[in-house]
Amino acid sequence: MNTSQSAAEWWAINGAITFEGIGLIAFALSGLIEAARKKLDFVGMALVAALTAFGGGTLRDILLDRRPFFWVQNVNWIYVILVLCVLAMIFMRSRHLEFTERAILWPDAIGLGIFTAGGTQIALAANVPAIVAVILGVLSAVFGGVLRDIVVNEIPRAFSDHQPYSVVAFAGAWLVLLGDALSWPGLVSVAVSAFAIVALRMTAVYLEWRLPEWKV
Amino acid sequence: MNTSQSAAEWWAINGAITFEGIGLIAFALSGLIEAARKKLDFVGMALVAALTAFGGGTLRDILLDRRPFFWVQNVNWIYVILVLCVLAMIFMRSRHLEFTERAILWPDAIGLGIFTAGGTQIALAANVPAIVAVILGVLSAVFGGVLRDIVVNEIPRAFSDHQPYSVVAFAGAWLVLLGDALSWPGLVSVAVSAFAIVALRMTAVYLEWRLPEWKV
Amino acid sequence: MNTSQSAAEWWAINGAITFEGIGLIAFALSGLIEAARKKLDFVGMALVAALTAFGGGTLRDILLDRRPFFWVQNVNWIYVILVLCVLAMIFMRSRHLEFTERAILWPDAIGLGIFTAGGTQIALAANVPAIVAVILGVLSAVFGGVLRDIVVNEIPRAFSDHQPYSVVAFAGAWLVLLGDALSWPGLVSVAVSAFAIVALRMTAVYLEWRLPEWKV
Repeated sequence: MNTSQSAAEWWAINGAITFEGIGLIAFALSGLIEAARKKLDFVGMALVAALTAFGGGTLRDILLDRRPFFWVQNVNWIYVILVLCVLAMIFMRSRHLEFTERAILWPDAIGLGIFTAGGTQIALAANVPAIVAVILGVLSAVFGGVLRDIVVNEIPRAFSDHQPYSVVAFAGAWLVLLGDALSWPGLVSVAVSAFAIVALRMTAVYLEWRLPEWKV
Repeated sequence: MNTSQSAAEWWAINGAITFEGIGLIAFALSGLIEAARKKLDFVGMALVAALTAFGGGTLRDILLDRRPFFWVQNVNWIYVILVLCVLAMIFMRSRHLEFTERAILWPDAIGLGIFTAGGTQIALAANVPAIVAVILGVLSAVFGGVLRDIVVNEIPRAFSDHQPYSVVAFAGAWLVLLGDALSWPGLVSVAVSAFAIVALRMTAVYLEWRLPEWKV
Repeated sequence: MNTSQSAAEWWAINGAITFEGIGLIAFALSGLIEAARKKLDFVGMALVAALTAFGGGTLRDILLDRRPFFWVQNVNWIYVILVLCVLAMIFMRSRHLEFTERAILWPDAIGLGIFTAGGTQIALAANVPAIVAVILGVLSAVFGGVLRDIVVNEIPRAFSDHQPYSVVAFAGAWLVLLGDALSWPGLVSVAVSAFAIVALRMTAVYLEWRLPEWKV
């Protein structure tokens, strides 16, 4: 009984860290690819990767007045992203890859799903109203990518993609609240919500769903 | 006596909420118009509208370390802006309006006046020095619009309008401090300052006052 | 003994304020020059100067949850930057200077050195891990310039300079930690680190060191 409880806790803690790590790496990769496409130098690539990975979660922590920040509490994430940048650069230089505009779609979708679900869960734990939890979840996923696009001087994908992006995150975040209402374990709610967001986003991309545009 | 006091309080509270609502809706409209002009999709339009409406007040609350944020304290604002976006989109699609560059001048000016005056008042209540209260008031009015312009990839109007904009807000904000010094009711100070800012801004626009430019 | 201690304290406090002032003025000048090059109006120039000067330190204070902000604690900085802007504008108009792209290199490097070293020191005093102190130092130096470049619609110099910039700050910030480990007086650590960063940055500029770029 005691062991099974410990096992559940072990899964809850390590599952959450694993999720966070996958989300961070996915967003960092999307930043690296975007920076490479813009021909930034190596330091610029690392900075854009770090901004994309850490930006959204930091905004979430500021808005929730949550200190220390997740990257101060767990300093290792900083080193993980640093090592990732170095590896990616070595790899990229040896292969002379050319990135199409579509190359960032997968890492971007995975980051979107994990950060939306995780952010909503963290905001819920801070006892904010449901709609605020959902908005903070979406913000923590979207803001890193918005920063990435702003610093490379583009209109952010989250605003102008013409394919469902933020709206998918907004819809999927409610699954975390559903799971919470049904007393699912936190990790399960987050996993279901994250998976639904990634699946929906990539379906939207492959089936080329388009949002209506303002016509003049 | 007691009734009159209650009436005064009723006016103070509901007047403040009404003002805040007008300011939020005005800024949201300016965001919608700007996003429509940039041909963003419907989700992008709602996001830019929300960013413009909530951005400045959120920065003010962060700088004053004031929690919960005004949009967490009063979650209804989120729904108001959401409904406004939906209505605006339905309306826009049915009419095929074309927005000129001048279309956002009125909503932008009204938002500027109300948020500058209200932000200065809130900062004063937090006991900061006078110059800091004025700067926070101007920031809370200007920041939403700056975000709006940054995300649609423009040099912010607040910096490059060549017509008095932030400087009008800066001047008008001192009226709140004057009212405070003369012990006017808070709502009166805010109303006078907001009205002065809107009037001065629109006068500047119609009379085509221009700020000196740097010549080379 | 007592006198010598007081003298040491006097130096520590006034040295820190002097350093901060030089850094602020250097960054404000870089903002003024950039804004002049972009033909902003006079109010826009003052705003960009203020954003560049105060942006990084404000982010540092937000991330460290440090209130009041340095510019609320010492309101005079606001007036210093205001007077600087007025003087610069009078001077610029009388001389009809034309700024080359290189004109901002010196003020930018001085601001970079002083804010990186000072920010690292302040973060250290708040008992964060070493790597976090260094990152906050670099952020507090780089963020003002990033804001400056974003609002004038450029890809930030910190990301795309192709000459060592942020990486110089990152390297130099460790000197503050070295000084701290060797129990140097705080002012000495900061001075050594700031000097090293400025020297290294300007050497990189004059010798035209280049960071490797991503090739396709």
